[in-house]
Amino acid sequence: MKGVILGIAPETHIVDVTHDIPSYDISEAGFVIQSAYAYFPRGTVHVVVVDPGVGSSRRPIAAAVNGHLFVAPDNGVLSWVLESGEGIIHHITNARLFNPVVSQTFHGRDIFAPVAARLSRGISLDSVGPRIGDYIKDALPQRRPLGNNRFMATVLRIDKFGNAITNIRRTDLQSPFSIRLDGADVRRVVSNYSEAGPGEVFAIEGSTGYIELSLNQGSAAARFGLRRGLEIEVETEAVNH
Amino acid sequence: MKGVILGIAPETHIVDVTHDIPSYDISEAGFVIQSAYAYFPRGTVHVVVVDPGVGSSRRPIAAAVNGHLFVAPDNGVLSWVLESGEGIIHHITNARLFNPVVSQTFHGRDIFAPVAARLSRGISLDSVGPRIGDYIKDALPQRRPLGNNRFMATVLRIDKFGNAITNIRRTDLQSPFSIRLDGADVRRVVSNYSEAGPGEVFAIEGSTGYIELSLNQGSAAARFGLRRGLEIEVETEAVNH
Amino acid sequence: MKGVILGIAPETHIVDVTHDIPSYDISEAGFVIQSAYAYFPRGTVHVVVVDPGVGSSRRPIAAAVNGHLFVAPDNGVLSWVLESGEGIIHHITNARLFNPVVSQTFHGRDIFAPVAARLSRGISLDSVGPRIGDYIKDALPQRRPLGNNRFMATVLRIDKFGNAITNIRRTDLQSPFSIRLDGADVRRVVSNYSEAGPGEVFAIEGSTGYIELSLNQGSAAARFGLRRGLEIEVETEAVNH
Repeated sequence: MKGVILGIAPETHIVDVTHDIPSYDISEAGFVIQSAYAYFPRGTVHVVVVDPGVGSSRRPIAAAVNGHLFVAPDNGVLSWVLESGEGIIHHITNARLFNPVVSQTFHGRDIFAPVAARLSRGISLDSVGPRIGDYIKDALPQRRPLGNNRFMATVLRIDKFGNAITNIRRTDLQSPFSIRLDGADVRRVVSNYSEAGPGEVFAIEGSTGYIELSLNQGSAAARFGLRRGLEIEVETEAVNH
Repeated sequence: MKGVILGIAPETHIVDVTHDIPSYDISEAGFVIQSAYAYFPRGTVHVVVVDPGVGSSRRPIAAAVNGHLFVAPDNGVLSWVLESGEGIIHHITNARLFNPVVSQTFHGRDIFAPVAARLSRGISLDSVGPRIGDYIKDALPQRRPLGNNRFMATVLRIDKFGNAITNIRRTDLQSPFSIRLDGADVRRVVSNYSEAGPGEVFAIEGSTGYIELSLNQGSAAARFGLRRGLEIEVETEAVNH
Repeated sequence: MKGVILGIAPETHIVDVTHDIPSYDISEAGFVIQSAYAYFPRGTVHVVVVDPGVGSSRRPIAAAVNGHLFVAPDNGVLSWVLESGEGIIHHITNARLFNPVVSQTFHGRDIFAPVAARLSRGISLDSVGPRIGDYIKDALPQRRPLGNNRFMATVLRIDKFGNAITNIRRTDLQSPFSIRLDGADVRRVVSNYSEAGPGEVFAIEGSTGYIELSLNQGSAAARFGLRRGLEIEVETEAVNH
């Protein structure tokens, strides 16, 4: 893919965002690119090819969101990005932009890479194919209200240190609050890791803007059985505005 | 190695083709570079240092094939590339092109990287050392005819999904054909993965141009005991030209 | 981090020195950067963020050593680099150089990357914050004299092949010498791997300039129980100058 890109757009700076997405894990890839893309310069073309079903079952798409461009299969991997701003989406159909021979099994190299390279050189989204209004959505977990100042949150992912990234925002946590884990209640948000005592479980606002649950000198995921998709109950103080 | 290259040729775009070659695996590296190099722009310098025997036992070589340049140890790693076109090969002997101090154990940094960087800046192959006519060949598995429209093919590698890449070409498979695995016969070539039924084993022309054996939603290698170097029998219809 | 760097300094060549430092392993990171940095062009900015304690417990620092620039947490990771030459060290305090929002958990992205990018564009070390005279030192193992031409050396690291890199220099080994392992004495330094017999344990001057203990066709670490931090006894011939 990098060879194809450099052949078409020799001045491109190519950056690998991550080598650590498990095969086929569309949700993980969607979360990672949504967390990272805005830190790149506007005008960056992001190639997001995590794809369990090469072939006829999904469309290749190109999108513009917040001044960034994306090429990806239409399988949900761009859901989170497309929720982050007003998106314009096109179905990639113009085969003149592809490699001369398109393999059955490596569309990253033969379709996505050459289209991304040409977008980086300034061709318009209109030239890749027709604009479309719909796209496949990957389930984005929402906070689920329970009443009585309680709601259910969801674990979005576990990082390599065993921290659990949730879909809770800092502003959701009116003090006093309680995040109920199996075996502990989390009752405070720290400002940095060094505030927490040894073995303490605590909440911290992570680099993605979401609340993370962490265990000082240990894996919160292992200790409390946290895993992606798990729902956890949160209770906060009533606030009268 | 990258620091050395950028010190000599600051404008170089450096691309890592893969981080996943097992230590010492010359055949795997040879296959990967042969599959990838033609997708880079002509004039690219490819540095291929997979090398179990640093020291006096093999020569460093530089080669030009199909408008691409290669530097590598003469241990067979370029065999597949050199079979892909008319090659010109030189023995790298000009120590003025090396790092000022050459370590005993890291020729990638001290010999191959600086020579590659200087080639990318336009020095001639003649300047690296004398032209040579021979090189070490890694065994390239050939299809072995059995008569009666049958031949033995070889598994070239297993990819991370458990697909088995063979040395069969699409044109070898005159219908009806049968590829005999231990427990199944493969009788059709699909055009994309979505054509195959759940649990079906099938053949597909892969991105390297070779036929791959795949299992829908599973590992063909694990199910049928496929491994690199295994021979498999193929029977095809007689064709009268 | 790469996106932030390219947003500030679009012409930067970004190189990953390694993806293989274990989490939190300051000594390993310190050894790797000290071994590698001098092979990059002078003026390179090296970002060394291996950091078990994000938050208030350590200072971010920037340093100039031998014409190279470094940004890192002040946690010992630059100890080896700072031993390699006359260093000038500044405490990074100028928040105008940081990202507009600084997260609690990802200072690599929000502090170190933007400061490094601005240094690469030519801002002075003075502009990042006040010069300081002290820094946290990671223990650098020294050779420990025992008398009678004997000393204790230390294993600095084990590489992926099972070679043990020690803090012995070639010039420490006056012949005849003996490096005493549990089960073998190493009595010679070879010039390249191919000099050693099958199964022989031997010493070789490695690419870092230190003596490495290797086993032909095997792992010296596994065979002799070598591990980082292990002390080994060395006896050399008396030399009268």
